[in-house]
Amino acid sequence: MTTASTFTDGLDLTALHRSAGDPLLSSMNFLNEIAGRHPDALSLAAGTPYEGFYDVEDVHRALRVFSDHLRTEQGYDEERVRRTLLQYGRTKGIIHELIARQLSVDEGIQVDPEAVLVTTGCQEALFLTLRLLRRDDRDVLLAVTPAYVGVTGAARLLDLPVHPVAEGPDGVDLDDLRRRIGGARAAGLRPRALYVVPDHANPSGIRMPEPVRRDLLDLAEQQDILLLEDNPYGLFPRRGHRLPTLKALDTARRVVHLGSLAKTVFPGVRIGYAVADQPVGSGPYLADLLAKAKSMVTVNTSPIAQAVAGGRLLEHGCSLVRANEREREVYREGLDRIVGGLARRFPDPSASGVRWNSPEGGFFVVVDVPFDVTDAALERSVRDHRVLWTPLHHFYDAAASETGAGVGPLRCLRLSCSALGPEETEEALDRFAAFVRSA
Amino acid sequence: MTTASTFTDGLDLTALHRSAGDPLLSSMNFLNEIAGRHPDALSLAAGTPYEGFYDVEDVHRALRVFSDHLRTEQGYDEERVRRTLLQYGRTKGIIHELIARQLSVDEGIQVDPEAVLVTTGCQEALFLTLRLLRRDDRDVLLAVTPAYVGVTGAARLLDLPVHPVAEGPDGVDLDDLRRRIGGARAAGLRPRALYVVPDHANPSGIRMPEPVRRDLLDLAEQQDILLLEDNPYGLFPRRGHRLPTLKALDTARRVVHLGSLAKTVFPGVRIGYAVADQPVGSGPYLADLLAKAKSMVTVNTSPIAQAVAGGRLLEHGCSLVRANEREREVYREGLDRIVGGLARRFPDPSASGVRWNSPEGGFFVVVDVPFDVTDAALERSVRDHRVLWTPLHHFYDAAASETGAGVGPLRCLRLSCSALGPEETEEALDRFAAFVRSA
Repeated sequence: MTTASTFTDGLDLTALHRSAGDPLLSSMNFLNEIAGRHPDALSLAAGTPYEGFYDVEDVHRALRVFSDHLRTEQGYDEERVRRTLLQYGRTKGIIHELIARQLSVDEGIQVDPEAVLVTTGCQEALFLTLRLLRRDDRDVLLAVTPAYVGVTGAARLLDLPVHPVAEGPDGVDLDDLRRRIGGARAAGLRPRALYVVPDHANPSGIRMPEPVRRDLLDLAEQQDILLLEDNPYGLFPRRGHRLPTLKALDTARRVVHLGSLAKTVFPGVRIGYAVADQPVGSGPYLADLLAKAKSMVTVNTSPIAQAVAGGRLLEHGCSLVRANEREREVYREGLDRIVGGLARRFPDPSASGVRWNSPEGGFFVVVDVPFDVTDAALERSVRDHRVLWTPLHHFYDAAASETGAGVGPLRCLRLSCSALGPEETEEALDRFAAFVRSA
Repeated sequence: MTTASTFTDGLDLTALHRSAGDPLLSSMNFLNEIAGRHPDALSLAAGTPYEGFYDVEDVHRALRVFSDHLRTEQGYDEERVRRTLLQYGRTKGIIHELIARQLSVDEGIQVDPEAVLVTTGCQEALFLTLRLLRRDDRDVLLAVTPAYVGVTGAARLLDLPVHPVAEGPDGVDLDDLRRRIGGARAAGLRPRALYVVPDHANPSGIRMPEPVRRDLLDLAEQQDILLLEDNPYGLFPRRGHRLPTLKALDTARRVVHLGSLAKTVFPGVRIGYAVADQPVGSGPYLADLLAKAKSMVTVNTSPIAQAVAGGRLLEHGCSLVRANEREREVYREGLDRIVGGLARRFPDPSASGVRWNSPEGGFFVVVDVPFDVTDAALERSVRDHRVLWTPLHHFYDAAASETGAGVGPLRCLRLSCSALGPEETEEALDRFAAFVRSA
């Protein structure tokens, strides 16, 4: 092969799908790339789970636990065990019953396992759902904003516009939601669903109060939209008990529940799922239509990866709450350390102009600072102070210009408690404080 | 949760993406479902690889081989080994260098590992490529037809029309290709790429002669289209030596090479890849843009699954030819058994009206019969004779109506040699012959 290229217009960027040149899709790349250039920097940016308890032997043990389960509980002979783990398999997955059991044990969600679609990470579950919900140019997605870039990015790949809905102090501003739906319909559009993270949202850390959850479900019913509930952090409350998920309160099947095992098993399994028990078409469930689409995207989810996740579920009686007792404590202490550490370093917010929230769980704290938080500011922080964090503008869709949000630089940023241990967090906060004072 | 649904129009099938109701996407479901209803039937339909050599312990061993490789060859400490296998990871994958080495060892393809994108099965590589190639309603895909339903299905999910190109006796009819490109352009459309399986195509079993490969590359260059080369069966020749892939002959970077490890490692890893070394945009490679899209579909490919595939590559000096010596023999004998078995059972084709081809490799034989091969005929075959095969109309896109292909019932079907052992194949051929004689 030569290195010369004869392409003229064939692979010009302007001949490819618009997402290929969209800065939104480069946002994660930019953040990873800057981290990669500064391996000595401490990261208060990464939302990756704490890996202090990880052990490669856990993978082997989980695989054996799941294989034994197939033999003893399911009565499979060796040939069938081999086939289950190594061949192509059921499009909807092979650990759907274990996931349904986990949802029952941990969340009080009672769901037919046939309505559970196992996916290659939660992102695929989201992508497939958005694929089916966009029929033509009239369809739009609503998303509580600021929002995880994976939502707007997936929507971009599908040419599905995302209309932001204000988060407010309660996780969703219902008046704004009503207004947005009305506005979209008045413009001849079809708002199909609202993407929302009720438990410890990313980036805001906000948890939606239970009465607001009930009101949101009522509104979805009145307005005939779906709710796409994403729940990666629900098992990590900082204080008190967990609240019921939207799906646990969903009596009218308005909720597609998107689940991730990345934070509760580990990211390397790349296992997520959708609970989509809506009756539709020849169904019986929306999950069946999602599976048809999945068969053309990834065919099926690696049964080896599913077996590892399934083994972990079985080891803990299908309770991820029990499986994550140590992790929950780590994240709880991590949030305390950041919130308390900021208070010690910025004792007088009105003088410093530095303010932050005190979230009830999850991984993230949002900090307001008295200067514009640009990507250039992050570059300075990394270069001069060797500490990483995430500018909040990365959670706004600049294309949603009617809101004005995400266009100019914001004066806030996100700190994550999940990746660093205690000493490193204190050191990172020292560096962060030095950066803020120098900015 | 109640079972009552209050949905009226919200989840009506007509409000979802058209693919949800498309019979094309139900084609694989139909074939799996009929097999599921008749577990006692013998399958000459399944294109799944032979599993007689599978062993769950291979998964454990491959994982350990790959982990040791990270320690000894890459010098990773335990913490980094754990992180590599269990955390989120590089979007383009972690076994790209091993895949590039395999392509060099087995195929004589020299490629920068940075141009290799590891995907969740080959299907994801295909899906992402089609995603980027469709910018708007003017873009169309060309596909040598009959074609694997995964191509037309993925295109359907992306609203990308597929224009069929005649296969002819040489794997692609270049005159028809030229005509199709011209016709599409005359209609204001942009033919972007041709999907083609040069080695032992599915379903036809045809292998493209080397001079035709060179002519096809020239034509792609003249006409400014890409070639999407899918190569799941290339390592399984029945007779003689293997031919160079299009990618090995590609001096002008016209070929995106789509690779699958499903048949050469095992399907349960769900690992495929794209070799996309085309320079484009801020690149450096098309692979980098595909990776951006992938980050919004599946984030990254399970590093555990990649480690299993990587371990298998390492065990065989990165040669899948060496790794598959036994399998190659199985498939070679399987094709011989079907071709010879048909000749014994239908000794006089002009009397029986039953004819078949004698492919040079792969898994598949196409059989012409003197009656319409409908899905109802398959149902009869399974019910009355307990043998499965695949009607050829499932490899035609009924929506591509300008060709007439795929609209009426065809008089041919596909037999696969891959799933059954010797005795079962003979028994299945007896049953198949009885069905044909009764039809």
